[in-house]
Amino acid sequence: MGSERDSHLTEALVSAEQVWLGRFLDVRRDTVALPDGVQTSREYIVHPGAVMVLPLLADGHLVMERQYRYPMGRVMLEFPAGKIDAGEAPLACAMRELAEETGYRAKSWAHAGIVHNAIAYSTEGIEIWFARDLTAGAARLDSGEFLDVVTHSTAELEAMCASGEVTDAKTLIGLLWLQKWQAGQWPLVWQAAP
Amino acid sequence: MGSERDSHLTEALVSAEQVWLGRFLDVRRDTVALPDGVQTSREYIVHPGAVMVLPLLADGHLVMERQYRYPMGRVMLEFPAGKIDAGEAPLACAMRELAEETGYRAKSWAHAGIVHNAIAYSTEGIEIWFARDLTAGAARLDSGEFLDVVTHSTAELEAMCASGEVTDAKTLIGLLWLQKWQAGQWPLVWQAAP
Repeated sequence: MGSERDSHLTEALVSAEQVWLGRFLDVRRDTVALPDGVQTSREYIVHPGAVMVLPLLADGHLVMERQYRYPMGRVMLEFPAGKIDAGEAPLACAMRELAEETGYRAKSWAHAGIVHNAIAYSTEGIEIWFARDLTAGAARLDSGEFLDVVTHSTAELEAMCASGEVTDAKTLIGLLWLQKWQAGQWPLVWQAAP
Repeated sequence: MGSERDSHLTEALVSAEQVWLGRFLDVRRDTVALPDGVQTSREYIVHPGAVMVLPLLADGHLVMERQYRYPMGRVMLEFPAGKIDAGEAPLACAMRELAEETGYRAKSWAHAGIVHNAIAYSTEGIEIWFARDLTAGAARLDSGEFLDVVTHSTAELEAMCASGEVTDAKTLIGLLWLQKWQAGQWPLVWQAAP
């Protein structure tokens, strides 16, 4: 998707402004020039990026989490995930989040891809990692973090996605990647944990 | 996922504040009580909701869009989508966005599900609709809206998802739903356009 081919679609920065900065949200409003030269504003969140982990137990079950998500007003079933710390490599973040939130450590890791989950108003990208050869341990939740660790088979997860019980975007994409890999269609390259 | 079962996870509103309101973004910071009674803040976007349409041509190709997404800094390949207007039913929004952005009108529609794409910091839900029995017409883009309408086979879309060329979350979930429906695993109930 090269830039020359896309000049009739591309927007150019005119001026940038940080309009609100919270403990977590960094809100920007940039003035941009549209392809026809008209100026407008683009409002968006600057996000540090995140990782999601698909942890595969030896019996084929998946390690997942039930967590209250305040903007949703309810508990959601999700794959383990978390924000990348400043300067942290995505795999290091994946290993840290899996251990902190579930207690599991994995000997083998494979990078699947990246998902951009709110392209209209956030820079967030979620790196998808598979983890296997798991060893259970004690979770070390951050203060203020509350979640249940649960396990499900792929069939159980698929049924909950089809029925609408699972609606979290990254988790639905986790199911897509998982089943493509299981079918031998989207191969993974595994590496030992560093 | 009933509330009684989840009392050890649930957060309760203490006080609410709108901290920034732009032309598009509505930013909130609520004070909440965690399950252990400790108070913290939750920062999030209030979003009106959106729809995504999977438009199926008679030859099996999909109608898609290439659009510059400013927070990503590049053109993204996506299924047609748009925000729900105040008081608008999701199907009416789906019909409107498909016609405005691509010029296509569909005689048959089916609701697939809803996706929550940024559960940590946005209330957004994206309703997924399938559309078929399409008739081409002229697009009527909003002023300031620039996009290319393109068509792809399911196989082409899948290859671009596997390779990392397509990273938009809703579009990846569109592929999941499409292939599950094509395989007869996630059935759809079709209705005539109202």
